[in-house]
Amino acid sequence: MSSTFGNNIKVSIFGQSHSEAIGVVIDGLPANHKIDLAEIGAFMARRAPGQNSVSTPRKEPDIPRIVSGLVDGVTCGAPLCAIIENTNVRSGDYEKLKDVPRPAHADFAARIKHGGANDVRGGGHFSARLTAPLCFAGAVCLQLLKEKNIYIGAHICSIANVKDRLFDSVNLSAADLTRLASRERPLLTPELWQEMEKAVTDARADQDSVGGIIECGIVGLPVGIGEPMFGGMENRISQAIFAVPAVKGIEFGNGFECAALRGSQNNDAFYYDGDRIRTKTNNHGGILGGLSSGMPVIFRAAFKPTPSIAQSQQSVSFSQKQDTELVIQGRHDPCVVLRAVPCVEAAAALAVYDMVLDSNNGNLFA
Amino acid sequence: MSSTFGNNIKVSIFGQSHSEAIGVVIDGLPANHKIDLAEIGAFMARRAPGQNSVSTPRKEPDIPRIVSGLVDGVTCGAPLCAIIENTNVRSGDYEKLKDVPRPAHADFAARIKHGGANDVRGGGHFSARLTAPLCFAGAVCLQLLKEKNIYIGAHICSIANVKDRLFDSVNLSAADLTRLASRERPLLTPELWQEMEKAVTDARADQDSVGGIIECGIVGLPVGIGEPMFGGMENRISQAIFAVPAVKGIEFGNGFECAALRGSQNNDAFYYDGDRIRTKTNNHGGILGGLSSGMPVIFRAAFKPTPSIAQSQQSVSFSQKQDTELVIQGRHDPCVVLRAVPCVEAAAALAVYDMVLDSNNGNLFA
Amino acid sequence: MSSTFGNNIKVSIFGQSHSEAIGVVIDGLPANHKIDLAEIGAFMARRAPGQNSVSTPRKEPDIPRIVSGLVDGVTCGAPLCAIIENTNVRSGDYEKLKDVPRPAHADFAARIKHGGANDVRGGGHFSARLTAPLCFAGAVCLQLLKEKNIYIGAHICSIANVKDRLFDSVNLSAADLTRLASRERPLLTPELWQEMEKAVTDARADQDSVGGIIECGIVGLPVGIGEPMFGGMENRISQAIFAVPAVKGIEFGNGFECAALRGSQNNDAFYYDGDRIRTKTNNHGGILGGLSSGMPVIFRAAFKPTPSIAQSQQSVSFSQKQDTELVIQGRHDPCVVLRAVPCVEAAAALAVYDMVLDSNNGNLFA
Amino acid sequence: MSSTFGNNIKVSIFGQSHSEAIGVVIDGLPANHKIDLAEIGAFMARRAPGQNSVSTPRKEPDIPRIVSGLVDGVTCGAPLCAIIENTNVRSGDYEKLKDVPRPAHADFAARIKHGGANDVRGGGHFSARLTAPLCFAGAVCLQLLKEKNIYIGAHICSIANVKDRLFDSVNLSAADLTRLASRERPLLTPELWQEMEKAVTDARADQDSVGGIIECGIVGLPVGIGEPMFGGMENRISQAIFAVPAVKGIEFGNGFECAALRGSQNNDAFYYDGDRIRTKTNNHGGILGGLSSGMPVIFRAAFKPTPSIAQSQQSVSFSQKQDTELVIQGRHDPCVVLRAVPCVEAAAALAVYDMVLDSNNGNLFA
Repeated sequence: MSSTFGNNIKVSIFGQSHSEAIGVVIDGLPANHKIDLAEIGAFMARRAPGQNSVSTPRKEPDIPRIVSGLVDGVTCGAPLCAIIENTNVRSGDYEKLKDVPRPAHADFAARIKHGGANDVRGGGHFSARLTAPLCFAGAVCLQLLKEKNIYIGAHICSIANVKDRLFDSVNLSAADLTRLASRERPLLTPELWQEMEKAVTDARADQDSVGGIIECGIVGLPVGIGEPMFGGMENRISQAIFAVPAVKGIEFGNGFECAALRGSQNNDAFYYDGDRIRTKTNNHGGILGGLSSGMPVIFRAAFKPTPSIAQSQQSVSFSQKQDTELVIQGRHDPCVVLRAVPCVEAAAALAVYDMVLDSNNGNLFA
Repeated sequence: MSSTFGNNIKVSIFGQSHSEAIGVVIDGLPANHKIDLAEIGAFMARRAPGQNSVSTPRKEPDIPRIVSGLVDGVTCGAPLCAIIENTNVRSGDYEKLKDVPRPAHADFAARIKHGGANDVRGGGHFSARLTAPLCFAGAVCLQLLKEKNIYIGAHICSIANVKDRLFDSVNLSAADLTRLASRERPLLTPELWQEMEKAVTDARADQDSVGGIIECGIVGLPVGIGEPMFGGMENRISQAIFAVPAVKGIEFGNGFECAALRGSQNNDAFYYDGDRIRTKTNNHGGILGGLSSGMPVIFRAAFKPTPSIAQSQQSVSFSQKQDTELVIQGRHDPCVVLRAVPCVEAAAALAVYDMVLDSNNGNLFA
Repeated sequence: MSSTFGNNIKVSIFGQSHSEAIGVVIDGLPANHKIDLAEIGAFMARRAPGQNSVSTPRKEPDIPRIVSGLVDGVTCGAPLCAIIENTNVRSGDYEKLKDVPRPAHADFAARIKHGGANDVRGGGHFSARLTAPLCFAGAVCLQLLKEKNIYIGAHICSIANVKDRLFDSVNLSAADLTRLASRERPLLTPELWQEMEKAVTDARADQDSVGGIIECGIVGLPVGIGEPMFGGMENRISQAIFAVPAVKGIEFGNGFECAALRGSQNNDAFYYDGDRIRTKTNNHGGILGGLSSGMPVIFRAAFKPTPSIAQSQQSVSFSQKQDTELVIQGRHDPCVVLRAVPCVEAAAALAVYDMVLDSNNGNLFA
Repeated sequence: MSSTFGNNIKVSIFGQSHSEAIGVVIDGLPANHKIDLAEIGAFMARRAPGQNSVSTPRKEPDIPRIVSGLVDGVTCGAPLCAIIENTNVRSGDYEKLKDVPRPAHADFAARIKHGGANDVRGGGHFSARLTAPLCFAGAVCLQLLKEKNIYIGAHICSIANVKDRLFDSVNLSAADLTRLASRERPLLTPELWQEMEKAVTDARADQDSVGGIIECGIVGLPVGIGEPMFGGMENRISQAIFAVPAVKGIEFGNGFECAALRGSQNNDAFYYDGDRIRTKTNNHGGILGGLSSGMPVIFRAAFKPTPSIAQSQQSVSFSQKQDTELVIQGRHDPCVVLRAVPCVEAAAALAVYDMVLDSNNGNLFA
């Protein structure tokens, strides 16, 4: 059991790729907050399929129906439930997968875990489609965070071997993130898109796929959010981010790079910037001892290439107990990174908002 | 609140660097299991200070006193509590830190969070000393996992720029891990120790410190351990691993490297190895869709260089509201990586054992 | 936040009396169990409104739509979500309640708690209508418990001053509970129904309402279910039962009566009944030290009379800041006890099933 | 697992009657609060054994040693751990109990649950001795609640058949509770003590024991504390109260009595008392829909007579698989009610303080 997240809010995500519907319940939201549904819709549209040449053509309206928790658009203190109908489902595509697990997918392990009863259609509950309710819940949290002047935004660092620059981790601002969100492509260097798109379309032409890296920034956090040991910001954000399918690594601040540095290079010096204490550099990625330092929180998540590729692959047949070739039918993104950007923001928002609500943080916002 | 971990066991770690004692309560352990205290002692000795030229000379016996939960060395179903007295404490060293936070430490954020009431001595609850009870709890879980033929072991991948090779992720065996644990240094290539030691002693000579990377392997897991979404193995292991101080990144399988690969390169082909289904490669690091695949689970954690260095550093004085120089007194490891190896194993063991206990996994061990 | 229950399953109930829909997500159910939806429908019909002369005439089909978690009627390991549309809603009835709280209802406290944003229509999330998804979730758990030969059944002990006898707590059997469930009225002495019905109709004639007591029995539990201290069977069952609206007390075994007894009268002697150890009496209600003793678990819950009565009552006007008279419009049960019987069974089933799943109980079912 | 309580604080109680020590860890306490240890000592002395003619003569200092979480008597944000050594232990008394379970004790069920590995000495983790750390944790919470002007106090309603009057549930004040706490005996009618004492000494003379009822009041709560459904005040308080050994029932407000009343009798009319809305009567016991109504919260808990009596009792011998006589040696309270009064206050304090900390209650204290 663990499609549930949070200590102060409980986010419970349900549904399978081909079940009647998918959705989410958010229990514990504060009452009396206006929720902007149009803004949520716009946020969710960023992860919707079929939006561009590099995404799957499976088109779904994916309009969440809010069945509880709001009265006249305002949170009423009751759990907020949003449901998204699964309308455009072609179950036939997936029949063979009952017998032959797709490499790099959850199929094989899910089959064993659930004694063969797992919903194999489209990956069932493991489908990336479940990021739709994740994005809905994240969008709600993003709005509530914005009320506290906390902003979260992500961009594509790399697709395949095409690399964009990283955030200016010292000076990243809410305005930067807002500008980023308004762009057609979540890139710091928009002109790189053509090159990235080519990497993706080349892969598709080769019946293949590519991966990439997404960087996320969080600004506006007061100093001191997060809890020691298992409840630190790195702990909680990483727990949430690995809920986004295809993530295989996460690093905060300068991340893996710090392992080759000396302390004198890696430590970030404190200084007074007017009345406020800041650090001159931000190798620590805004987190010290698990707690927010007041500097921008920066992390990067590595996404593996889409496992579903059109090339023939080697797998096994459960029924025949022997090796076999598998050709995956259906429509699949050759690169999930673009659509994953709002998912990363959403997952981070769940973790951050849940931490912000921790009972002992009240004074940090005074 | 979050010095507590686990859904099926509850591990609650308490204490500060200079409080009277530190310790841990483990609630939810199954009854009727013999605990080998000598083995725990040997495990904990691997993280104890003062063991070699690259570690802090602060020597402490760190012998845990088990005050509850065992009867004649056997778990009795009651919470297991172990206490470690803090005996070798020189509080005077840390007086100045109340006013001047140490760069790259939790001091600054903790002070703001706790309104100045945080225990500044030695980092208080944020001290790496708290890894002693973490190791105790992990050692208990390691023994209980071993009963199920699940083994966890880690080695140093790199210190500073000295790199060892990685695990053979396809063939890693319990025997490999046992052999590794028996070595004086947790290295796949023991002869590299001299070079690593030199990197550390050079840094110390420069009043500096170095970081490194630790790789951990888990073998013997049946297929299907882990839960979807927020409860996957990556989610839970990373939540636990970031409890080890100085960790700034984690990656599973080929991790960040996968972002630049194509699906056809990254996907691991299934095949029948006799009756058992395995993958030919293990880029997925033994985890698919958050579930164990039956292949060795492999992850790496990046450790930043020890923040406490003897060089003068720039910081701020709270009392004088201005920038100041800080020279850290006291005894500090110029490299935490060696002592962190058992900590990584311990944190992983907490996460894995907690997942193994999940109510729906009973049949996986049948 | 707390419309969520459970450690091993997570039951998350959502909806308001007059929201678009209500429902429940059950995360953590084991895969590969057939769910009998017709049986669930029959169970839920027992709490449905409009079924007899003593219940509210508001009729709703209340047929749950299962949108996820089942494939061909079998649990697939994904969260099970059931949704019940709110079709027969007359919002106009409740307009005045925004200003004048109903005595003995949650209105007043909910308004203050939620800063006036609470959904006042029909009591919002506090409405007894939310027992529909509670019953759905409970019905699922009852089926899974039945697979383990654990049976739960309840009967009306009293309505107003009309009292039925209590369960034979020593000999209560699954057959007894099955027979009880098959009766039109959940009474040990069915002929008392006429008298009870008269008490209710008399109250209605007086624009009044009545309360009552429900007794619940659980048979088939192995010895040892439950955890110490805060996780005992009494703790967990009572936490669940107070989720049923109008419950104001709960007692186990001989309950409050034991306070006036001597130990020699109250202690239940152990004896061998063949190979099995039982107690000669069952004052302890099948629970010792929070753990099941193997004897039938017995508890009683007291229900207050329906707070919504047609008589004019004294309340206050928030807008006018003065006392006022309130006449409640709408359709209300003059006695909730009859419809509450399946709710008690359902709430008990959630608690018991969640405890049964505890990781350390595997051997108790061997 | 469940010797752990709380959502916003985590209270983890450890130890057995005859383990080396018992204690508690409280994680999540806010920093910067002065803790009055003398006051805690005085509170704990009220439950200490050996204080009067009706309690067990086993004398223990029971002075908790605080090993972490306080710096100069002020909470520092780290988990607070208190340890109480078990010094006066006579293990020999309990040898026979390994084979013959004591009627009405946890022995039998614990033995089966833990496969014979349970700590049988003095009841192990099920011993009433574990109420010492419970009282410690409760005393801390009581102090923190007092800072918010919330007071909790309990009195003996009855011992055997000797009954005191109940609280004036409408007018109960903090002053009333303070006066009560200052009395030698927690009675509203102190002169009844003699009669109660006689009932106990008579029972002891008969090698028997007696039960009783404790009533608890909570004043000063703002309107709106508590959460819907499973998180209501009744749910959470009852979950905590059943952690006190020997409790078999709990009722709020007029409790079981309400079941025989009509709505017009039971409903509590709202009225303006100056600017404040109160109810004229308090049958609801200060809780409506699970939320505090602003009226005093009132509940009663029924305690069974001490199961350990000196009379010979019938039990079974596991080893001989036959019925046998049991004569319990050792020192036992013939009535636990007097010592249980602070335990009830402590358990209630844990639940109330945890609810008060809920993230959405901040505005209720503004």
